[in-house]
Amino acid sequence: MRGLFISFEGPEGAGKTTVLHKIAARLKEQGRAVTMTREPGGIPIAEKIREVILDANHQEMDGKTEALLYAAARRQHLVEKVLPALEEGSIVLCDRFIDSSLAYQGFARGLGMDDVLAINLFAIEDHMPDCTIFFDVPPEVGLERIWKDTEREQNRLDLEELEFHKRVYKGYQEVITRAEGRIQVVDAQKSELQVVENVWEIVNSEVNLKWNS
Amino acid sequence: MRGLFISFEGPEGAGKTTVLHKIAARLKEQGRAVTMTREPGGIPIAEKIREVILDANHQEMDGKTEALLYAAARRQHLVEKVLPALEEGSIVLCDRFIDSSLAYQGFARGLGMDDVLAINLFAIEDHMPDCTIFFDVPPEVGLERIWKDTEREQNRLDLEELEFHKRVYKGYQEVITRAEGRIQVVDAQKSELQVVENVWEIVNSEVNLKWNS
Repeated sequence: MRGLFISFEGPEGAGKTTVLHKIAARLKEQGRAVTMTREPGGIPIAEKIREVILDANHQEMDGKTEALLYAAARRQHLVEKVLPALEEGSIVLCDRFIDSSLAYQGFARGLGMDDVLAINLFAIEDHMPDCTIFFDVPPEVGLERIWKDTEREQNRLDLEELEFHKRVYKGYQEVITRAEGRIQVVDAQKSELQVVENVWEIVNSEVNLKWNS
Repeated sequence: MRGLFISFEGPEGAGKTTVLHKIAARLKEQGRAVTMTREPGGIPIAEKIREVILDANHQEMDGKTEALLYAAARRQHLVEKVLPALEEGSIVLCDRFIDSSLAYQGFARGLGMDDVLAINLFAIEDHMPDCTIFFDVPPEVGLERIWKDTEREQNRLDLEELEFHKRVYKGYQEVITRAEGRIQVVDAQKSELQVVENVWEIVNSEVNLKWNS
């Protein structure tokens, strides 16, 4: 039986990654097969592409180049990691997927959500996530969190101005409106404990729907 | 006055690169501003992408990933190198451009020429070459030439089988049919001297058409 594909989305500093690890741990406690992964990256070719995208020296990078590189990394990651895991029946928790490109490149960089959707559909064909969780946190709050995090190495996107991250947030709102129910929103300003509980409710209900009904 | 954008296309071992250098030299003798460049690459970000594409270790690379990476490198190369040179009035001689993707990924890899055209139009918008020269050489002859060239370091595409290169050749025939006159065909089995003469005739007539009419 095919597994379950869940993507985690949200602005920088929304706490996605931390929560994803805790949800994975809970699923494993239940005896579920879990694959944690992130975009862009997760496999050697995609990690190489990720290096090109995030290199802080690449200030000349054009928005369309960036969008095409994300789509390329997404394709390879999907084919090499996500689809094989789903075929083995695993629950795949993926840190960012197509919606990030729609919000960041399509909306915030002004490339157009329809055009960015088109190159991404070339990349992923009909492999949309079964469920997507959006970590809702205002851009100011998210950025404050990552600026406080002295252990985090700042990449090219962290260096963008607040104005850019505000546009990303607006982009996500537009993506959610268009997604017609695929995306579930979690208030990520609450305590980490509370956010984990809320995300768990969603994931658990998807898992039950799939395997216990 | 905007410059002139000429792309050189053809299968491996067609002799494009050598001829391109000789044509550039002749144009410079005439006092023309010339920019020689190649795809994928020509600028740091695109060269990095080129490394990812051609790395002989990347045997897992999916055809769609490859197509998206070429489109990404093409975009950056266009924006950073080709367009600025054209704006300065230069004659840009480009070793490979969009038609390579149509023949290699669209046709030979079986991704579909229309889909590959679509992601490439996202990348280049309306910046098609003013003129394209196709170096016509049967795949067997081209491959024999590169296999004999012991100084050439074999990349991931050189390692493809003859069957693949035959499909590339067929793909180019299809591209030429669709291009409705933009692509001019040169018999690249002739002597190098003769090929240079034939290419020169085409380039010279384009230059005269642009600047002397």
